[in-house]
This record gives sequence, structure tokens and C-alpha cells, in this order.
Amino acid sequence: MTYCVGTLLDEGLVFLSDSRTNAGVDNISTFRKMSVFERPGERVLVLLTAGNLAITQAVVSLLREDLANPDAELNLHRAGNMTEAARCVGDAVRRIHDRDAATLKQHRLEFSASFILGGQIGTEVPRLFQLYAAGNFIEATRETPYFQIGEFKYGKPIIDRIVRPETSLRDAAKCALISMDSTIRSNLSVGLPLDLAIYRRSSLKLETRRHITADDEYFQMVRGSWSTALRTTFGELPDPPWG
Amino acid sequence: MTYCVGTLLDEGLVFLSDSRTNAGVDNISTFRKMSVFERPGERVLVLLTAGNLAITQAVVSLLREDLANPDAELNLHRAGNMTEAARCVGDAVRRIHDRDAATLKQHRLEFSASFILGGQIGTEVPRLFQLYAAGNFIEATRETPYFQIGEFKYGKPIIDRIVRPETSLRDAAKCALISMDSTIRSNLSVGLPLDLAIYRRSSLKLETRRHITADDEYFQMVRGSWSTALRTTFGELPDPPWG
Repeated sequence: MTYCVGTLLDEGLVFLSDSRTNAGVDNISTFRKMSVFERPGERVLVLLTAGNLAITQAVVSLLREDLANPDAELNLHRAGNMTEAARCVGDAVRRIHDRDAATLKQHRLEFSASFILGGQIGTEVPRLFQLYAAGNFIEATRETPYFQIGEFKYGKPIIDRIVRPETSLRDAAKCALISMDSTIRSNLSVGLPLDLAIYRRSSLKLETRRHITADDEYFQMVRGSWSTALRTTFGELPDPPWG
Repeated sequence: MTYCVGTLLDEGLVFLSDSRTNAGVDNISTFRKMSVFERPGERVLVLLTAGNLAITQAVVSLLREDLANPDAELNLHRAGNMTEAARCVGDAVRRIHDRDAATLKQHRLEFSASFILGGQIGTEVPRLFQLYAAGNFIEATRETPYFQIGEFKYGKPIIDRIVRPETSLRDAAKCALISMDSTIRSNLSVGLPLDLAIYRRSSLKLETRRHITADDEYFQMVRGSWSTALRTTFGELPDPPWG
């Protein structure tokens, strides 16, 4: 499985992904699920992937090949705005579907893939999209300023309680790490290391890109301190009047 | 859907269930999912149910009919210990399976049902079980002192972080309500009113049984205060050193 989250804030964008893939609990590997397409000063795009690894890797390969292909109708370096970029990723998903879906079906394998794409192109505002296996997509708004893919349920309540469009980039990164911690504790198929990317609005280059391993001091502190702080906070909440 | 949780503590047992049932989002009803089988001074049993409502109601009806049936091999009033009580519920599930599963299959409906059974009989310690649709069951231990059925994921992290065997009954009830709140916020098919039952070890009668509606002052306070307190706690956690 996988857990990825992308957040759209007034200050910019925050992305976090785990790196565990598995074909059964007895077959676990580590693959990065975050791809960055960056032209500093012009555009920054971050793509997070979940689902069948052969499919999502094929999609990312195709997107990278198209960058160097002068015959490509559209690519992520030429897309004029984020809607075009999302369409570009969706088209790549559809091309892989055309190539692989029938064969996968013969093996009773679902064409399973989902994506989060966020970034900024030129003078447009930063935007965030979630794409489905059919290549269609939805865009984040102020009412729902985040997307999750993969094993999203364990880590959703903390995001719902904390993240608003006016949340700072640092707080959104901290919240994403707590959300990831809750997920890792409950689902063996989500695991370290993590990839974190922070983009500040209008900077047109990634502010932070960090590979977080089990040794990471800040993540270790978050894991321990959050549980402790939560228990203290819980203890301070008034007891039920009954019982 | 449904969300039910049962917790086994040194001090006793805490049970919480929602009451929403649905056949599609356009067909929502309210049914209690908690049944109590109590003989004060002798035994207290609490049964929580999730899954297909026709199945779970049939199981509970059968268990109640057997109480009055002198020919019943075993019933929940005669079970000599909690293992026998769990076997009694499992047998009822199997009898309903024998009656209904083939017909359900013709309509392409799964025989879906799960149960939490907890309580105390005589001088035995309080015990807690989770039963599956096949009528088999597992028992809670000190390592895993709680069970959840239905939509369990949203509400699991807070229980994992708070509940230990030495947690008090009041704290376990408070934690169950927060866990329920996290679930209700995220899944439309889980909803108020709630049923809460608290059993104190060796009392052999229910200490608290409470029907919690949207007007309940304590639950309203928990919902509001927990979000506020969580945001404060979150704010006090050190910021990431990067970004």
C-alpha cells in the first residue's frame, strides 16, 4: 500500500509520501513515490503516486520521456498552466491503460493507480489536483485544501482538525508527519523512509526536499512528543459526568 | 455502516456504538446496535453488532428467543463462563447462516456480520470477544485490550495512543467518544445517537447505560474542546527545522 498527502495553502504547497510497496506482507520493498519536475524560476511540479507500482512507474517514465521528445504534443515542461499539466498526467495514465489494462485483466489484476499533482507554473497561483486511474481529475479548493491517496483513513482526522488554507507551511508539514505517523502505526504496508517537499508560493523553486529515514531527529521527536502531548491533553479534558 | 468499540480494562469494560444504518446514502435509518443481557448479581453481557442489519437482528432475536426456550441446549443466561457465551453467540450466527446465506447468495449479497461481546459471569474476570460471520471468535488480551467493528480506521489512532489496560473506565469512555467523533466527522454512514455502556469489574450490574443524542452536553463539549485542545497541543509541538 502507500500513503501520500498533498496540501494547498495560502503560503504554498506541502507534499509527503511514504516509500513502502508490497505484494503480500512477505514481499516488502522500498520505492520513492514522489517525482519532481522542476525548472527553477519557471515551474515546479510535484507528483505523488499510489496503486500498482508497474503502472505508476510506467506513467512517470512516460512523463519523463516526453520531456525529451520534440514530437510530444504536450509535456510537463511545456504545459502553460496547471490544468494542462494535470491533463498531461491524465493522458499518460490513459496511454499506459491502453497498453497494459487488457493484459492485466487477463491476469485478473485491476488497473489501479491514483495520483496527486501540485505545483505552480509562471504567474498562475499554486494549484493541487487528484487524478484517478481513468485519467480524470479534481482540484483542491479552500473548502477541501488537501488530497490523500492510498491508505488515507488513519491519518485523516488530524488533518481535518488542523489544516486550513491559512495554516503555515511549517505547520502543514508537521501535521502531515503526524498524519503519516498515525498511518504507519496502524498499517504495516505504509513505512519509512518518507519524502517531504515544501513549496513556497511564487518562489518557482522547491524550498525543501527532504528524505526522512528512521534516524531523522525531528520525525523521532514528533512521534514521541505527539503521543505524550496527546495523552496530557486528553487527561485535561473534563471527565464524563456519568459512570 | 457502523462503528462500535469495546474496551477491556483492569477496572471493567466500556462499550460504545453508533446507530446509523444505510442502504445507500439516500436511505438512512436509526437502529440500536447494542444489546444487553443482564441478570444483576449474576451476569452482565453486552453485545455490539455490525454488518447486514437483517442478519444481526436475526442473531439477536434468536439469542433472546433462546432465553425463554427450555429446549435450547445453551443460552446467554445459562452459559457458565464467557467462552460459552461467545460460543452461544457464534452458534446463533451459524444457525442464521444456515437459514439465510444461500438465499442471500442468490441475490449476490454477502453474509456480512461481526460482533463484539463482553461481560462478566459470576466469579470469572470480565472478558471481551470479537466474533466473525463464520461464528468463530478471538479474545482481547492485555496487549490488545480493545476491539472495533464496522468503520474502524478513522477512530483507531486515538485509541492506540491512549488506551492501556490500566486506563480508567471514565478515560476509556472519553476516548471512545473522541474516537467516535473522529469517525462521524469522516464517514456519513456513522451517526448519532450513540449508546454507551460502562461495566465496573465484579459489580455484576451495568454501572452506566446512556443514550447520547445530539443534545448531550458532555458529548458536545468533547467534540468542541478536543478539536480546540488538539490545535493548541499541535501549536506547542516544535516546528520542523527545515523549510
